[in-house]
Amino acid sequence: MQTLNLAEKLSQFKAHWSPHQIAIVDDMQVLLAKIKDEFVWHKHDDEDELFQVLKGTLIMRFRESEQIVKEGEIIVVPKGVEHCPTTKDGKEVHILLFEKLTTKHTGDVQAELTKTQYPKL
Amino acid sequence: MQTLNLAEKLSQFKAHWSPHQIAIVDDMQVLLAKIKDEFVWHKHDDEDELFQVLKGTLIMRFRESEQIVKEGEIIVVPKGVEHCPTTKDGKEVHILLFEKLTTKHTGDVQAELTKTQYPKL
Repeated sequence: MQTLNLAEKLSQFKAHWSPHQIAIVDDMQVLLAKIKDEFVWHKHDDEDELFQVLKGTLIMRFRESEQIVKEGEIIVVPKGVEHCPTTKDGKEVHILLFEKLTTKHTGDVQAELTKTQYPKL
Repeated sequence: MQTLNLAEKLSQFKAHWSPHQIAIVDDMQVLLAKIKDEFVWHKHDDEDELFQVLKGTLIMRFRESEQIVKEGEIIVVPKGVEHCPTTKDGKEVHILLFEKLTTKHTGDVQAELTKTQYPKL
């Protein structure tokens, strides 16, 4: 029952597109990530995925549209929906993710950026 | 796949200890609440509960200790652990909760403050 300081946890790593696990809530996990430029188009067939922007602006691309998600905003990507998280102008963005422990980093896609394990902070 | 602005959602209600549901992620829900003074001692036998402080300082009391949770910090209360969320000096605190759809507001306790349904925003 420790208090988790998000800024302090974020200060412990630098790599982009490398989620770090800070907590587990039942069968879900809280991840922190620093992201920059474009990720990988993918979907999660069986899991929803929540993104909360802690710093900067996330552009969540979908096949037919995109959503701009600013600091203090949340977006939930429903299961089965292809998405590609992106940032603009080479800016680093800090996000919190809330998702099942079973959710794979790049879903049904295997890519150079794919992580199969998340370090714990 | 709408973007949810936490400040805008919080501006839509005033009542204390009245969680409002802003999103569902699989079998869990995201709630926003404004809290002030002391809640009710209770526990959730089967569900963990995540609290994220968006504004102010939450004092999470446990039977043998307490944790101070400031803006930008998170605490996860494990299932089965008695807790009593509190604020100090009559200050209003804004929190985000992440918990199962089955989690009862005051767990195993029925109290005057107990809500059996959460309005959706």
